[in-house]
Amino acid sequence: MSHQRNRQHGREQQQQRTRHPLRLVPLGGLGEIGKNMMAVEYGEDIIIIDAGLMFPDEEMLGVDLVIPDTTYLSDKLERIRGIFITHGHEDHIGGLPYVLPRLNFPPVYSLKLTIGLIGVKLREHRQLDLATLNVVDPTTSVRAGQFTVSFVRINHSIPDAVAVVVRTPVGILVHTGDYKFDYTPVEQPPADIAGLARLGEEGVLALCGDSTRVESSGFTPSERVLNTTFDEVFAHAPGRILIATFASLISRVQQVINAAEQHGRKVALVGRSMVNNAQMAIELGYLRVPAGMLIRAEDIGHVPANELAIICTGSQGEPTSALTRIANGDHRLVQIQLGDTVVLSSTPIVGNERAVSRNIDNLIKLGADVLYQGNLQVHVSGHGSREEVKLMLALLRPRYVIPVHGEYRMLAEHAKVAVEMGVAPENIVVAEDGDVIEVSPDSGIEIVDHVPCGNVYVDGLGVGDIGQVVLRDRRLLSSDGVLVVVVTVDSDTGELAAGPDIISRGFVYERESEGILDGARSVVERAITRHTQQRGHVVDWNFIKNKIRDSVSEYVYQQIKRRPMILPVVVEV
Amino acid sequence: MSHQRNRQHGREQQQQRTRHPLRLVPLGGLGEIGKNMMAVEYGEDIIIIDAGLMFPDEEMLGVDLVIPDTTYLSDKLERIRGIFITHGHEDHIGGLPYVLPRLNFPPVYSLKLTIGLIGVKLREHRQLDLATLNVVDPTTSVRAGQFTVSFVRINHSIPDAVAVVVRTPVGILVHTGDYKFDYTPVEQPPADIAGLARLGEEGVLALCGDSTRVESSGFTPSERVLNTTFDEVFAHAPGRILIATFASLISRVQQVINAAEQHGRKVALVGRSMVNNAQMAIELGYLRVPAGMLIRAEDIGHVPANELAIICTGSQGEPTSALTRIANGDHRLVQIQLGDTVVLSSTPIVGNERAVSRNIDNLIKLGADVLYQGNLQVHVSGHGSREEVKLMLALLRPRYVIPVHGEYRMLAEHAKVAVEMGVAPENIVVAEDGDVIEVSPDSGIEIVDHVPCGNVYVDGLGVGDIGQVVLRDRRLLSSDGVLVVVVTVDSDTGELAAGPDIISRGFVYERESEGILDGARSVVERAITRHTQQRGHVVDWNFIKNKIRDSVSEYVYQQIKRRPMILPVVVEV
Repeated sequence: MSHQRNRQHGREQQQQRTRHPLRLVPLGGLGEIGKNMMAVEYGEDIIIIDAGLMFPDEEMLGVDLVIPDTTYLSDKLERIRGIFITHGHEDHIGGLPYVLPRLNFPPVYSLKLTIGLIGVKLREHRQLDLATLNVVDPTTSVRAGQFTVSFVRINHSIPDAVAVVVRTPVGILVHTGDYKFDYTPVEQPPADIAGLARLGEEGVLALCGDSTRVESSGFTPSERVLNTTFDEVFAHAPGRILIATFASLISRVQQVINAAEQHGRKVALVGRSMVNNAQMAIELGYLRVPAGMLIRAEDIGHVPANELAIICTGSQGEPTSALTRIANGDHRLVQIQLGDTVVLSSTPIVGNERAVSRNIDNLIKLGADVLYQGNLQVHVSGHGSREEVKLMLALLRPRYVIPVHGEYRMLAEHAKVAVEMGVAPENIVVAEDGDVIEVSPDSGIEIVDHVPCGNVYVDGLGVGDIGQVVLRDRRLLSSDGVLVVVVTVDSDTGELAAGPDIISRGFVYERESEGILDGARSVVERAITRHTQQRGHVVDWNFIKNKIRDSVSEYVYQQIKRRPMILPVVVEV
Repeated sequence: MSHQRNRQHGREQQQQRTRHPLRLVPLGGLGEIGKNMMAVEYGEDIIIIDAGLMFPDEEMLGVDLVIPDTTYLSDKLERIRGIFITHGHEDHIGGLPYVLPRLNFPPVYSLKLTIGLIGVKLREHRQLDLATLNVVDPTTSVRAGQFTVSFVRINHSIPDAVAVVVRTPVGILVHTGDYKFDYTPVEQPPADIAGLARLGEEGVLALCGDSTRVESSGFTPSERVLNTTFDEVFAHAPGRILIATFASLISRVQQVINAAEQHGRKVALVGRSMVNNAQMAIELGYLRVPAGMLIRAEDIGHVPANELAIICTGSQGEPTSALTRIANGDHRLVQIQLGDTVVLSSTPIVGNERAVSRNIDNLIKLGADVLYQGNLQVHVSGHGSREEVKLMLALLRPRYVIPVHGEYRMLAEHAKVAVEMGVAPENIVVAEDGDVIEVSPDSGIEIVDHVPCGNVYVDGLGVGDIGQVVLRDRRLLSSDGVLVVVVTVDSDTGELAAGPDIISRGFVYERESEGILDGARSVVERAITRHTQQRGHVVDWNFIKNKIRDSVSEYVYQQIKRRPMILPVVVEV
């Protein structure tokens, strides 16, 4: 309340009276690659930077997506002044359809293409009418409570990527988003180095900087180097050319279209997200396609092989993507034919290596010539390498550094680079999701608290209804299957009336292993008989169930060293 | 029979009378990394090269190991003259305990260390008395039916690695095993380049060559380069040094011991396989450890931090390995302390990236300084790069080439290199497991047949009892769990006597989702009631079960878009 009144006096006065620390609460992306989200607080005001999703790893069985846990914000909804998005990749915008409703739809701000991509996503989730989407450009700034927020262009593997500049009563915070410095970018302006330098001169209190590729020495090559690659591929490919890449990699799609134009090929887009994103990018002016060049995927049969290029999704081996279907020979429209050249224009994200490798093998077996990062430079990263991380630090000269966007080891490595660049070690915090970081010009930077903050799993329509118990059960079920043991027991005597019957799934191939199941049946019979003999007429159903579970589990483990889940079903008659 | 008689006449005569093609039947390792095994046949004689295992990928749920399918050999047991092993790595010897009993224990031949490692393995499986293990050295040769088999030293990341030279009535076959050319190896002689060159001059009919690293340009660095790395690490580490590597990488262990000697540190070995392998290697003279240097893992607390080095397993992030336990803070003997330096002296094998990355993160969080391939050269490969593949082709000048040991794309790339080296394209066969390859000096090389040959899964004590059905069920169970629907039905009327009850595991967190389970119960009730009304007294149990399965499945999918496995249990009373 006092804040409200204070704010009516001059800003200067208010600052001196209630000089709060700046609080940063990363809710995703620190200690992991994905679901980037950070809350920035000053006094009563909160803004959020990004709200991404993460794809599940192999231990999150059956999970479709992972989104940030926003519990920390749930009692602070009226204080949220807006969500500022750095760029339109899934790990920065993909959480919005889940997070926005939980946060009461605060206004969302970003550049044109990013807002366009968010719009497509919210329309799919029927939230477009509920959300407030604001297109901002880098020359303007947004007032959000006591914050003034603006954007500075950087380069990334999607146009309209920006760093977020947050002016606070205690100083400037810069959040880089994902960035590289590309002096010769494709179809996007170079990073605004002068703008960053000006911020550095003005004085930057704290920097949250991308750590993804800090382990790679030197500079990440420019997108431009791929022009040569594509030119060469298009000049020599005897038949059709299929290029798989990320649907969001608009500049890569542009490069392919440029090469197709130069070498007189038609282009077909294959894969739902590729078609949608390209359409959006064309409408908003981010993708230039010569008239008459695009053909429908249904018509690829009508174009001679050496006059056709196909751009498709699936460069990460995603199971239901276009390229995976093509590699498995079960795509509705595209079948590999001899003379096809397939280009995988991406590198596998950690965890996808096997799927990508399987696709390459299958494509080669079908007769395609496959070009991938192993045998040609077909991809450059969108993240800056170590020297670019240094350049960012040199331009901004921040007092405090909080490495973001990376596995813990990358954050730690980023911290080392910051020390090399002259930042005092006590001014750097390597934090994790849920840490509450307080920054103040006077008393330094420190982690003052840790708030609940984990993975929220999305599985089908369920959001957050899957926790460690369900995942542990799925893990058990996946490793040795399940045995359902059904016994019918006389409710008066506790004696077996029928059964035991055993249903197994995922345990052994039943027909070949009747012996073990027979043995298990005998074990159950003995267990129940012994129990009823011991206890007479007092029947303790839970005791019987536990007895069945333990005795079958032990028997099966002895016989075959497997530990299926045992589900006893006791029916009283 | 006629062969038996023929063989008593002179060899020359027999050759002219029955000139068979040489048949190669790869049973593992072609189109995959792992479970290497190849059958070589001439007339009535069969020999086998290697019998490895493969670790399961993420789709082989609950599987412990994968071994080659030897069905093809099952009706040819009397024709098998021996198994020749190239070196002692798991993907070359790990299948032996499973394969030997199925093949009636043919004699096994290899060099001393390899036979030592096989012995350890067979002892664990209580097969040592049944097997015939023969130590051979590279100067002698073994008569095996019409084959004469000898070994040529190459370099690999384990001592006593060899290529297998098979002299057949129609010419010489060379199988390289895993190789690199290391001109300055550690504690092992350099590859026998002169011996390979002599074979080339004599004339090589066919080459089966390692393809693992053919995608990497240039030469693989010598093991020796790591001496500098270890020297530097040992010179600067302020506290304890933990080095994780493969237990079989004897030379790497030797390098660490040498560095420890030079810098005055004691060494403890941690991890069962590390201890066993080192012991074996010391006994056989492959590992030199200064007296008094080795200490028991139990005693590491008694040695000052800066006088201790620990060599442990777990460089691949294996879940139960020493390093993973240490990184998780639950190792019995080793807890990370501030000032520890951990070196991961290996690169992650495809599929292990996430596990390795998690270990690194956890170790850093515990306060260790972690050195890994990302920030220091801590590992060199045991496989030769593209130029070494060329050198092998240049030395042997084979007429026919069959790339082995690699994913399909690596085999295809190896074929391209062979063409570059002047081998006629029609003389190269890119084959897969189970292909039957016929080679003859007169009529070329071709794939003439394909025999059943897939993965045999080992899970607990079960070998081969898990097939596609069980794995599919495990996949289903892992993705959305299981619902057991129990109904008790009056056997006369078909009407519900009790229930329906639903037990769920791995589906939703039951307490929070009672609504769905209640709904499913109503659906079952309705389905059964409708059925009994329609059919009167004729009760078709299978129909009821299917009805339950379908109606619950549909209801659940509508409600929450998940597809758990539905197991109906109908109890008649």
